[in-house]
Amino acid sequence: MTTLRELGEFEVIRRLTAARGEVAGVVVGAGDDAAVLRLAPGVELVATTDAFVEGRHFLPAWCTPRAAGARLAEANLSDLAAMAATPCWALLSLGARAEHEAEALVEFHGGVDGALRPYGAGLVGGNLTSVEGAEWFSLTLLGAVAHGRAWTRSGARPGDLVAVSGWPGRAGCGLRLMQALGDGARAGEWAALLEAWCAPVARVALARTLAETGGVMAAVDISDGIAGDLGHLCAASGVGVKLDEAAWPGDPLLERAATRLDLPLDTLRFGPSDDYELVLAIDPARRPAIEQAARATGVPLSFVGRFHDAPGVLAVRRGDGSETPLPGAGFDHFATGG
Amino acid sequence: MTTLRELGEFEVIRRLTAARGEVAGVVVGAGDDAAVLRLAPGVELVATTDAFVEGRHFLPAWCTPRAAGARLAEANLSDLAAMAATPCWALLSLGARAEHEAEALVEFHGGVDGALRPYGAGLVGGNLTSVEGAEWFSLTLLGAVAHGRAWTRSGARPGDLVAVSGWPGRAGCGLRLMQALGDGARAGEWAALLEAWCAPVARVALARTLAETGGVMAAVDISDGIAGDLGHLCAASGVGVKLDEAAWPGDPLLERAATRLDLPLDTLRFGPSDDYELVLAIDPARRPAIEQAARATGVPLSFVGRFHDAPGVLAVRRGDGSETPLPGAGFDHFATGG
Repeated sequence: MTTLRELGEFEVIRRLTAARGEVAGVVVGAGDDAAVLRLAPGVELVATTDAFVEGRHFLPAWCTPRAAGARLAEANLSDLAAMAATPCWALLSLGARAEHEAEALVEFHGGVDGALRPYGAGLVGGNLTSVEGAEWFSLTLLGAVAHGRAWTRSGARPGDLVAVSGWPGRAGCGLRLMQALGDGARAGEWAALLEAWCAPVARVALARTLAETGGVMAAVDISDGIAGDLGHLCAASGVGVKLDEAAWPGDPLLERAATRLDLPLDTLRFGPSDDYELVLAIDPARRPAIEQAARATGVPLSFVGRFHDAPGVLAVRRGDGSETPLPGAGFDHFATGG
Repeated sequence: MTTLRELGEFEVIRRLTAARGEVAGVVVGAGDDAAVLRLAPGVELVATTDAFVEGRHFLPAWCTPRAAGARLAEANLSDLAAMAATPCWALLSLGARAEHEAEALVEFHGGVDGALRPYGAGLVGGNLTSVEGAEWFSLTLLGAVAHGRAWTRSGARPGDLVAVSGWPGRAGCGLRLMQALGDGARAGEWAALLEAWCAPVARVALARTLAETGGVMAAVDISDGIAGDLGHLCAASGVGVKLDEAAWPGDPLLERAATRLDLPLDTLRFGPSDDYELVLAIDPARRPAIEQAARATGVPLSFVGRFHDAPGVLAVRRGDGSETPLPGAGFDHFATGG
């Protein structure tokens, strides 16, 4: 074990950057005042940033430094997936205590970089400063997309279909289990839910495949929960939405967890969560092409409702034919301390 | 006064982004998962990130939230200046306490954005999360430079001249005065030194003007102090350097402060500091063109030494003809708690 104070800033940076591989398009990489990066002509740059704070966005008792770093990368990758962009380069800004074990920091950094590598992307710069309280890690991710081909939140039209990837609610449910049951959550039956929170995989591959069909009109990732983020998409597009409960992806594991946690299933699947799934507005005429493309990636894609022309009206058609407002507000970092 | 908790995350973000002006090249700006930005063909992207931690990189007793935000922008602008890049777009990642006054956060954000505006640059995205301890602010700045025209640290050749902008050491001296004298530092005689720390101006305009001459072979900003950053440039270029004390920019104010602080002048002008000045390697044949270009910007540029072919040898020729090693090591954020 070696602390950051023992190694000194420049040796820590040397160890962090020494572990990086090659990244395409890097003209000047680590060790200068800034990275120099080349984009191809006709390509637009897509930029996003997300940060994790110790004890809040990652829990040392539940995930290794490497897994925490990978999770930060996935949070940013999910934003690029929601824009149909290809990940290229990232910059990592670290606030670490002087007593932080250097090896753990190298692992965290390797977790970030490793999660970017499957896309040919990687870290090209960063900043390291010391803190005394909770540590924090802020990642900026840059991607590319062909001119005019980025998905936005504002393209949904009345009549477009609502599609959702994966099993929404699993990540937030995993976190609730860890908080409510402590070590009891380590029981094998909850493993898939804990993994959804600790080791998510952003839907980059799905997004790139679906983008080729031209059938996606709008997109958003649901890191703040379905109700909140679908609400943002509806507001940006000037539409409303009706979800169909009967079409929702069945998830017996989430149902069991709701019973164990004594929570309404709606709270878990519609409410605040940390899922890096996508909600998409789909041109109905392209549904077959979209379904075929999704199957090729192996990621479940469920058609769960339809957008309509009443802005601000978000509803769920229940199994018994009744209709209720879409429950669950978006996540507010300040109201809830999250 | 309204706290972040009272307003809620999305209203805070709405207030922050509402105050932004237009930025060239923005295809999709605030309010989506990521910003979409367009670069012209043949242009390389230059990316840097820097972070400030409350109580360390900005001192509420000494600078307003707006000034603190501007200073964070200048820290990043200085890195782009050192690459001869044109600032374009920035992303601001914030870790703020729920009790932070929303108005102060809007001021900080406006300080960042306002400092970028003179260059046609501005904020295009960010992230907001809550913290309980010290607040932090991490900025990623993206710039552009023509293909192959970025300055790096590795281009200095034996025989190139050493030029330095402005009055190195003033910012670090201002900070030492605030720490040592408390309110006594507010005396008018120290105003220019305090301003050097609280309200620096990165040398972006100087860099862009000098870049047009083609005479700059290598560059680095000296935010960690002359000795440290010039050492990094020498190491990257495989050269040594000899500075000439007699050619150093005279600074009677810095000398008075050294006396008041009972510190060697060398410590202030060569040692760790927060100056956003540039050190440049200049092709001797282009010195006249460089001097003429610098005069046009109104920024002092002093020729203070020469690079040579003995890597690792950094020396100062004193006024009496003697030679000493260049005093002052670079700034280590962990060794010194800075």
